[in-house]
Amino acid sequence: MTDRRKADDRARYPHFLTIPTRWMDNDLYGHVNNVVYYSYFDTVINEYLINKGGLDIHGGPVIGIAVETHCNFYQPLAFPALVSAGLRVARLGRSSVRYEVGLFGERDECAAAAGHFVHVFVDRESQRPVPIPDQDRNALLALRIDAAVKSETS
Amino acid sequence: MTDRRKADDRARYPHFLTIPTRWMDNDLYGHVNNVVYYSYFDTVINEYLINKGGLDIHGGPVIGIAVETHCNFYQPLAFPALVSAGLRVARLGRSSVRYEVGLFGERDECAAAAGHFVHVFVDRESQRPVPIPDQDRNALLALRIDAAVKSETS
Amino acid sequence: MTDRRKADDRARYPHFLTIPTRWMDNDLYGHVNNVVYYSYFDTVINEYLINKGGLDIHGGPVIGIAVETHCNFYQPLAFPALVSAGLRVARLGRSSVRYEVGLFGERDECAAAAGHFVHVFVDRESQRPVPIPDQDRNALLALRIDAAVKSETS
Amino acid sequence: MTDRRKADDRARYPHFLTIPTRWMDNDLYGHVNNVVYYSYFDTVINEYLINKGGLDIHGGPVIGIAVETHCNFYQPLAFPALVSAGLRVARLGRSSVRYEVGLFGERDECAAAAGHFVHVFVDRESQRPVPIPDQDRNALLALRIDAAVKSETS
Repeated sequence: MTDRRKADDRARYPHFLTIPTRWMDNDLYGHVNNVVYYSYFDTVINEYLINKGGLDIHGGPVIGIAVETHCNFYQPLAFPALVSAGLRVARLGRSSVRYEVGLFGERDECAAAAGHFVHVFVDRESQRPVPIPDQDRNALLALRIDAAVKSETS
Repeated sequence: MTDRRKADDRARYPHFLTIPTRWMDNDLYGHVNNVVYYSYFDTVINEYLINKGGLDIHGGPVIGIAVETHCNFYQPLAFPALVSAGLRVARLGRSSVRYEVGLFGERDECAAAAGHFVHVFVDRESQRPVPIPDQDRNALLALRIDAAVKSETS
Repeated sequence: MTDRRKADDRARYPHFLTIPTRWMDNDLYGHVNNVVYYSYFDTVINEYLINKGGLDIHGGPVIGIAVETHCNFYQPLAFPALVSAGLRVARLGRSSVRYEVGLFGERDECAAAAGHFVHVFVDRESQRPVPIPDQDRNALLALRIDAAVKSETS
Repeated sequence: MTDRRKADDRARYPHFLTIPTRWMDNDLYGHVNNVVYYSYFDTVINEYLINKGGLDIHGGPVIGIAVETHCNFYQPLAFPALVSAGLRVARLGRSSVRYEVGLFGERDECAAAAGHFVHVFVDRESQRPVPIPDQDRNALLALRIDAAVKSETS
């Protein structure tokens, strides 16, 4: 687990969004419920696509659909903490992108949780895969982990 | 509705918390779902009690239980907007407090939604009402709407 | 509070939907979070409109928008309980309807929580109020509290 | 993907729970949001542990903590559908258990989504791993995929 967490330190993520926890994120056991972590994934990814990639979630012809998500939970998070959500792109295909997300306590260098999320871009009406629109692709290219970093971690 | 909304402008709220929306806050109709507004209420109230009133949600002997909540929805909010949640205290009793909450779009003077929330403070074990602890009471006193403001709005 | 709860016994609701609680409905204090009750309101109302009123939430020209919601919390509910959500119509206007909802523990005669929810029917595109479509209106008429019941409770 | 989905047909899951969708489960794109699927995982697992394993989520000395979750999304689900959540145990260790969950539309033989969830049982106070209590272990043994099924799928 140590090595995995090392691969997830803050320096490995080119984009961050601060996501404040909410009262109801905490579950009966006093920590943010495992389900809620994925809402942080969803939020950092879509915020980036909207603000940097020009994604129009309300009316655009192309939307991103989740086909696979995964998370490892290392340390608990709890309301009222602020969460720093780090985002990078591990693989960028013609129609799909694999994001990696790390969630950090406000002052922590090691991720409290880390995982991945695969989007397939589809036509909003037909739900068939389409090429990732250029503006989104350019925004996603900026989040790729460069080769040097990748070889270092493998 | 105009008068009600005037009573809810920003100047009427002594405390604010910025709450970013999340992707999944939006429902099928493209706006923050009515249910989610109450999670903003919950969050601004508990964040204030924890940070200013010393409320210990994990182990303290006294906790606040919701007994009544209400919201009027004036204008839609939608992800990825930031929401400003304004908080004031309208009535402070021995064991209970009535908060009023206004939710504002980031640059808006008029509330997009406004409502109230009544907490009864109870013993964590017995769930019986107890006097509001002094530190919480003092924090809540600072959020009262003063007499001048109240007469003006009535 | 006794009288209010009497007004909310099971016999006062002509329609019921069973809603199982979920693990994450419970909050830190071990009970269903106040916010979540409104998701039960939303669900019993929309399920009825879809199944009995023919509401097409995905593509229909008319949708229902929440303009006011309210809830009183009398007794806690907790996962893994089943909740019985009772629904009635208290006021049916040209474009708007006021529902009253009671939430009951599985074997309870008295409501654990009760409140109301006001829908305005609007054109999906313009978001302007429109008359409630006939099929929805007929479905809603079937949920009105009849005069006898009303005078008894007043 | 065909083979993976075959491995997830209904006959492979020894336990099922029906989970009705809720209005707010649908996101902007008209389907159950990816995050919400994990709340179905959480619910079928904890309902089983409580009802069959005697897990006391409110006061018991041992609780289950999520350390890893994963989901593949094959077909959309949408409110107001009923979801059948199938549960099996893929690996049962001293302190941990790997569940596999399949989510099915009400009349579907193939899973709309399938994934896994790893619980570590810990002491509620110290949060240190402890052996899975006997009653929980016995309940979990009943959900193991037997050798015949496993060799067939490999």
